[in-house]
Amino acid sequence: MRKEVVLLPGDGVGQEIMKGAKAVLETVASEYDHDFIFNEHAIGGDAIDRYGVPLPDDTVKACEAADAVLLGAVGGPKWDDMPADKRPEKGLLGIRKALGLFANLRPVQGFSPLVHASPLKTELVDGCDILIVRELTGGLYFGEPSGRSDDGQSVVDTLSYTREEIERIVDKGFQAAQMRSGRLTSVDKANVLESSRMWREVVNEKAADYPDVTVEHQLVDSAAMKLITNPKHFDVIVTENLFGDILSDEASVLTGSLGMLPSASIRTDGVGLYEPVHGSAPDIAGQGIVNPLGMILSTAMMLKYSFGMEKEAEEIERAVGQTLSDGYHTRDLDVEEGKVVDTEDMIEKVIDH
Amino acid sequence: MRKEVVLLPGDGVGQEIMKGAKAVLETVASEYDHDFIFNEHAIGGDAIDRYGVPLPDDTVKACEAADAVLLGAVGGPKWDDMPADKRPEKGLLGIRKALGLFANLRPVQGFSPLVHASPLKTELVDGCDILIVRELTGGLYFGEPSGRSDDGQSVVDTLSYTREEIERIVDKGFQAAQMRSGRLTSVDKANVLESSRMWREVVNEKAADYPDVTVEHQLVDSAAMKLITNPKHFDVIVTENLFGDILSDEASVLTGSLGMLPSASIRTDGVGLYEPVHGSAPDIAGQGIVNPLGMILSTAMMLKYSFGMEKEAEEIERAVGQTLSDGYHTRDLDVEEGKVVDTEDMIEKVIDH
Ligand SMILES: CC(C)[C@H](C(=O)O)[C@@H](O)C(=O)O
Ligand SMILES: CC(C)[C@H](C(=O)O)[C@@H](O)C(=O)O
Repeated sequence: MRKEVVLLPGDGVGQEIMKGAKAVLETVASEYDHDFIFNEHAIGGDAIDRYGVPLPDDTVKACEAADAVLLGAVGGPKWDDMPADKRPEKGLLGIRKALGLFANLRPVQGFSPLVHASPLKTELVDGCDILIVRELTGGLYFGEPSGRSDDGQSVVDTLSYTREEIERIVDKGFQAAQMRSGRLTSVDKANVLESSRMWREVVNEKAADYPDVTVEHQLVDSAAMKLITNPKHFDVIVTENLFGDILSDEASVLTGSLGMLPSASIRTDGVGLYEPVHGSAPDIAGQGIVNPLGMILSTAMMLKYSFGMEKEAEEIERAVGQTLSDGYHTRDLDVEEGKVVDTEDMIEKVIDH
Repeated sequence: MRKEVVLLPGDGVGQEIMKGAKAVLETVASEYDHDFIFNEHAIGGDAIDRYGVPLPDDTVKACEAADAVLLGAVGGPKWDDMPADKRPEKGLLGIRKALGLFANLRPVQGFSPLVHASPLKTELVDGCDILIVRELTGGLYFGEPSGRSDDGQSVVDTLSYTREEIERIVDKGFQAAQMRSGRLTSVDKANVLESSRMWREVVNEKAADYPDVTVEHQLVDSAAMKLITNPKHFDVIVTENLFGDILSDEASVLTGSLGMLPSASIRTDGVGLYEPVHGSAPDIAGQGIVNPLGMILSTAMMLKYSFGMEKEAEEIERAVGQTLSDGYHTRDLDVEEGKVVDTEDMIEKVIDH
């Protein structure tokens, strides 16, 4: 198959991990006789430095025309004091919104060879397997008004959702649960927020359409606790944008490292965007030590969700699993035994497998 | 000293734990020759059932006139389908707001005898000691507008803060850090939210007034992760209402049980409200098995913060520590060795000590 992939390396470690993604995809292409065309574009701080805006029109156009988008990471202290419209994160939020990528899928798995690296007791995390389905283009991140009063003495952000926005993400949650174990946990703060009351109402309504799925509701504070005390309780979690942001970073501790986690941002059909859950990690950028697996596993998600290449995706996941089983890992995964290697070696090992 | 204490047992396990608080305070009164006058009032679902509103005027008046307020818990499935103004939680939010209790202090300690009960590896939690300073009367919980559009097809909640509201809670955070190790972590989502940008600005400005305190900023998603991967990194955490709600419940896992955790809700001067961090736990209410320590430790906070009775407060904390060291605990603390007792026994043991 011939597929056009836009690469948005972005800032910090973005460049380093994107190399890994490309190398792995080139291997897949030659093994399976595919033709991947790569086009690199600017986003985030990199785009601000080069073009004065975090999301150039060219980037949006290229993404819209592509079959899929791979993104590294955006942001860094360099741009911390920029005005609101010149922040690297606006590039990321902007491209998610421009492409209408309302569903963010974040799988979290306790990889057996790595359970020792988790801060949690081994028996709690070994074998745990959670999919967080996060709403990505609504809520507090995008609601208007957002800004200061004229006198600068007060500030607001707005959490807004339409019923339709809630319905489509809740559907994704139910569908994911159907394809997995049939258990769905919906997370909200319905004892305080009106938006969460509507959220819960929609989930209860939709439940009738998915009789094979068992639904439970959890309050976000309680979910933040149970994710740690009993992670194996969870299968699919569906939640709104900000709660999903917090819970998915929190859930990363189960795997031992945020560096391991991939994500897919999709819509009902068309282009999808794939990025690791970790950020630009400016503290370690340029040192060649970043964990490339979150990015590499994101390419596997791309193959599966955007290109329907199940077998190729599994091949990548298998290669990652074997590399870890062999004891190789980057230094973020602080396991007693095992061999610490740097980013390029890690990429090479995965490719060998 | 003569002190008037309003008791608001509320719903679920509230009644059971309040008995413990009262018994402990009576012991303190007789040992130290104090005179505590208790007045019980209705709040939450209990108040809805009896008076048709979650926060009767009488309750507010009594609290305003008292020296301190002890609260059990509010809420439960019974009132889940009530309209917005008849939800138990409105009682709790209402009393916090009516009394102007903008600062919620939530200490989290890894009690040595209990570290085995934590889902985290022992070496990570043993000796950890965090104080979460949560803003309690602003943000998404109280901002207007909050509700549905006329056609019912969309919904908003509003996150709003005045600069002054941010300043006074940030001051509390700095002051707490000064009295402890001098390290303050401010948590926000400044890469996305305008309210967080103002929050961060205020923290940076205030830092000049507290040269002896070292400040760092963390994004809420990242903090949710680091709280688990490296809890000993934290001393005082200051954050806004919703983030504080989520992070303090999450941090409870460090102690092994949410049932252990006390909280104080205070203002610059005058009455304070003290309540356990856990909720009404309808699933175990009435069974006599709830952990009374969160409530008992909340009375210790009351003695310290509202009555200046440092010695008496320490006495309670010591008695709790010894009871745990003796191996006694309620069944929420699932430790291998040790003796599981029910609520009344646990209260008795603490009083004996
Ligand atoms: C960088 C930031 C805007 C982003 C978010 O909060 O969505 C990131 O934390 C993520 O989770 O992808
Ligand atoms: C019951 C609820 C309104 C409350 C809150 O979110 O503030 C509770 O979770 C808490 O943390 O005290």
